[in-house]
Amino acid sequence: MATENGVVLLDRWVSPFGQRCRIALAEKGVEYEYREENLVDKKSPLLLKSNPVHKKIPVLLHDGKPVCESLIIVQYIDEVWADKAPILPKDPYARAQARFWADFIDKKIYECGTRLWKLKGEAHEEAKKEFIEILKLLEGELGDKKFFGGDEFGFVDITLVPFTAWFYTYETCANFSVEKEAPKLVAWGKRCMERESVARSLHDPAKVYEFVCMLKKKFGIE
Amino acid sequence: MATENGVVLLDRWVSPFGQRCRIALAEKGVEYEYREENLVDKKSPLLLKSNPVHKKIPVLLHDGKPVCESLIIVQYIDEVWADKAPILPKDPYARAQARFWADFIDKKIYECGTRLWKLKGEAHEEAKKEFIEILKLLEGELGDKKFFGGDEFGFVDITLVPFTAWFYTYETCANFSVEKEAPKLVAWGKRCMERESVARSLHDPAKVYEFVCMLKKKFGIE
Repeated sequence: MATENGVVLLDRWVSPFGQRCRIALAEKGVEYEYREENLVDKKSPLLLKSNPVHKKIPVLLHDGKPVCESLIIVQYIDEVWADKAPILPKDPYARAQARFWADFIDKKIYECGTRLWKLKGEAHEEAKKEFIEILKLLEGELGDKKFFGGDEFGFVDITLVPFTAWFYTYETCANFSVEKEAPKLVAWGKRCMERESVARSLHDPAKVYEFVCMLKKKFGIE
Repeated sequence: MATENGVVLLDRWVSPFGQRCRIALAEKGVEYEYREENLVDKKSPLLLKSNPVHKKIPVLLHDGKPVCESLIIVQYIDEVWADKAPILPKDPYARAQARFWADFIDKKIYECGTRLWKLKGEAHEEAKKEFIEILKLLEGELGDKKFFGGDEFGFVDITLVPFTAWFYTYETCANFSVEKEAPKLVAWGKRCMERESVARSLHDPAKVYEFVCMLKKKFGIE
């Protein structure tokens, strides 16, 4: 891996976890090589070598040294390129709060969202109820602030915003409206999309839905 | 909560997550009030108010302001009392590595360990196989180092060491020897126990086993 100079991101276009890293790198103005991984057919030897524990994207290679797990990568980016566009606040209490909500999002949204399109019947209804509760908790935490940390775009925003491109999929699979349940969150998502770092990292919600439909077909889910 | 001055830890004696916070506070020499929560019968109004999202211990109250989730609490302690006994290394790459292994331990050990005493049959055997793989991965990461981060006791040590008091329970419930599977890890655990911060925060493995037997009885597990 010593040959991988500079900054390389092993990623997958649709991944909300990879998108976090792309947004953080864009915010910091770091140039990097993007390498698309084909997770469906075959993981690259470089991915397996760089993340032997989880074997998952995203992986950030910095001068050949791998960093894994999206939130750890984002914090690493913030610490290495510390002179520009701070991602975590300086105050320890504000940092702890940002880490708390980032951790909450990390543990809840994708897992519960996957149940929305994978499951049927009662388990599906349960997931829908839980997903709406998650949205309402986040809506409550956001309140009337511009971003989760206040006036500045930061760690919690980067953690959550990739999922806004998945909202259409979640809504379509579970027949509800994110805007109706959490209007402030939708307005926040639009504010985030005004940033080039975000707009360039996310994909058309229709493309995400198409991808999930492909997954459903692959798993034999009607 | 404005009445909760100073540092208060809402905790439960047997909790490996709470013990992480106790070790970190002891390493830093921070005086604090320990409040035992009775999770079995009734959570205190202060716990529910301080951690309304997860409703779980540990919670660190610092001048009335709550910090939740053990690894976030440990990082908070490291950042607030920064002048003594550093917990995370300074170098960003070493920090990312420490965070990676702490996250790995956080996601794997307790969850898999719980399956060791809760499940039977094939699921139990699967958990046992997985648990031994986890131990071997950690053994490999530790290698011949004194502590996970090198010569200094730090973040990964604090994250993992509380589980050494649970090893006897896991071994007894799943009929294997941690020392046989991961001898370096056992030696590392003994080195950690030479520190007053660790020795005073952990409990007798037999007491932990007794506690788990009580839980098994409560859940009707033979």
